[in-house]
Amino acid sequence: MNQTAYANDQFLRACLRQPTDYTPVWLMRQAGRYLPEYNATRAKAGSFMGLATSPDFATEVTLQPLDRYPLDAAILFSDILTVPDAMGLGLSFAIGEGPRFAKTVREEADVAALAVPDMDKLRYVFDAVASIRKALTLPDGRSRVPLIGFSGSPWTLACYMVEGAGSDDYRHVKSLMYRRPDLMHRVLEINAQAVTAYLNAQIEAGAQAVMVFDSWGGVLADGAFQAFSLAYTRRVVEGLKREHQGQRIPCIVFTKGGGQWLEGIAACGADVVGLDWTTDLAAARSRVGDRVALQGNIDPMVLFGGEAAVRAEVRRTLDRFGAPKKADGNWGGHVLNLGHGLNQHTPPEAVAALVDEAHTHSRRNHQN
Amino acid sequence: MNQTAYANDQFLRACLRQPTDYTPVWLMRQAGRYLPEYNATRAKAGSFMGLATSPDFATEVTLQPLDRYPLDAAILFSDILTVPDAMGLGLSFAIGEGPRFAKTVREEADVAALAVPDMDKLRYVFDAVASIRKALTLPDGRSRVPLIGFSGSPWTLACYMVEGAGSDDYRHVKSLMYRRPDLMHRVLEINAQAVTAYLNAQIEAGAQAVMVFDSWGGVLADGAFQAFSLAYTRRVVEGLKREHQGQRIPCIVFTKGGGQWLEGIAACGADVVGLDWTTDLAAARSRVGDRVALQGNIDPMVLFGGEAAVRAEVRRTLDRFGAPKKADGNWGGHVLNLGHGLNQHTPPEAVAALVDEAHTHSRRNHQN
Repeated sequence: MNQTAYANDQFLRACLRQPTDYTPVWLMRQAGRYLPEYNATRAKAGSFMGLATSPDFATEVTLQPLDRYPLDAAILFSDILTVPDAMGLGLSFAIGEGPRFAKTVREEADVAALAVPDMDKLRYVFDAVASIRKALTLPDGRSRVPLIGFSGSPWTLACYMVEGAGSDDYRHVKSLMYRRPDLMHRVLEINAQAVTAYLNAQIEAGAQAVMVFDSWGGVLADGAFQAFSLAYTRRVVEGLKREHQGQRIPCIVFTKGGGQWLEGIAACGADVVGLDWTTDLAAARSRVGDRVALQGNIDPMVLFGGEAAVRAEVRRTLDRFGAPKKADGNWGGHVLNLGHGLNQHTPPEAVAALVDEAHTHSRRNHQN
Repeated sequence: MNQTAYANDQFLRACLRQPTDYTPVWLMRQAGRYLPEYNATRAKAGSFMGLATSPDFATEVTLQPLDRYPLDAAILFSDILTVPDAMGLGLSFAIGEGPRFAKTVREEADVAALAVPDMDKLRYVFDAVASIRKALTLPDGRSRVPLIGFSGSPWTLACYMVEGAGSDDYRHVKSLMYRRPDLMHRVLEINAQAVTAYLNAQIEAGAQAVMVFDSWGGVLADGAFQAFSLAYTRRVVEGLKREHQGQRIPCIVFTKGGGQWLEGIAACGADVVGLDWTTDLAAARSRVGDRVALQGNIDPMVLFGGEAAVRAEVRRTLDRFGAPKKADGNWGGHVLNLGHGLNQHTPPEAVAALVDEAHTHSRRNHQN
């Protein structure tokens, strides 16, 4: 099979620390409730899960932000919790609330009953990937931009599986971890196998990069993070197909609150490390050296600051990373993004200003 | 007036990096809902604010954990939000919920109306400090242990004042900060003056150490943290009476999620920096050198792991800090604590194990 040709491959190039013309930009949760067209599609779908499980609807909402803004990547519209849902835990989203599982995994018997799900139960995700890829194909056969697939990390999935929902203290999952580390490791082992299979199936369906969201790694203690989160993210990364149809598939690992563990995360085998806004990009770049590209890291709340503040913060972020081409002629890769998902109340015009400033300002940094 | 004599001054000595016999221990939120006797007193008081505003009740609950466990310090029973309440914002606590303010500070007119409150409105706090000091005085005139006074940091108070309650995205306070930094700085300036006056009045009433809780500093972006949180904490620290009645009053600054900014926090003038569980104590100690003592940093959820896990984690934490006496003969100060407040569901016997192991194990480290 031939390699995919891209109308715009700046994102993939930055992930692999290859020369780019400017700093590519995409935004976590770029398809979502801040867009009126998203809300219209969601209304048609009836529910969040109705939206996420329909390849047609998922394709529609994945493309919406790309039709509004010149973003440099698309990301599969889905949820980080599809895998535990396929394990039979019963995922649902009540209006105005976060995700909730009908069953929780807290006792030895719950853990014993857990297994890597049949990937056929996640067929709707792989079908969505294929459908989005098709929708991203231009009449001349090239891809408009690359499509990113994703999953929650083994630890982040475990948080929801044990808590049954979001939490502000992670009491149940941490109690299990401290009281019965053997059970916790068993859950994480299953999750790691499941996430690996899930991401590989997304790659086979057409995902051109993959991202692991360790949204809750940052709630762990130093030591526990390495043992219960990073070790299992590493296993996932090690098990990924990194080449598909002659093309390198970059892998991004994002740990919210993981700034103190940057060196460890950068050594997990990923091509790109995502950062939240608490980490200075200049310091991060010097800490990781040539090992990985960096993605991030604007505070999503900057988008509530008005256009001038948005543009200033984009420039500051690009300048903290600095010139992508280094003195030694090599390239440090930077993908501009937020440090967490777009907030649902974000004014859409602020996103336009962010993307525009990222492209305009970074072209200057790239000419140096 | 004479200097206070203590039956146990290990905590003060550790704060000032003076020789101690063992590592002193106290726990954030050591007086609270996990203790049945606390709940009995709260029932008598009728409400949390009824409890916090009564010097008699506040004294009663402050002493409860000291009567159960051989803790090395007492901490004033109060709330971090008393200052904005005294500013007229109307603090309340609904059952099962966090704090809530009747008024919020979001518009220019709200900020213009804000002023440093008359400290007489906080008389109940200073009366509680004096009453607790009296209750801590032994028949021979010595203090059982030192009493710590505290306040929220200017930024943390501002979060609640702008949001009106806790938040998971800090959208309102960050919007104000990014859109109108001038207004935000004005709020923080007033808060810094108010917190300084408030802590100094606690010191005059008898507090023998003070702690600034920057509970929400960690939600800020790098750069914003330094400008909007740390700069104002530093002003508070600089304005504190550090000597009272011939005695040095140690100052502790705790920034939850501040691990990446440790060097900056350690340079703010405080004697002690509090750490949450995400930071390795060995690395922290080498980063701050001789500038400050360290306080922390066990994950409160460890207390749900059973006695063996609690004791193992206490030993690990003490050992990560290492021998308090350094090769050069100087002392590094360590105050053992949690990395955040005790959870309300904590089994009281786990706290007993923590305190016992801290004392027993650290005596060994101190003999080296």
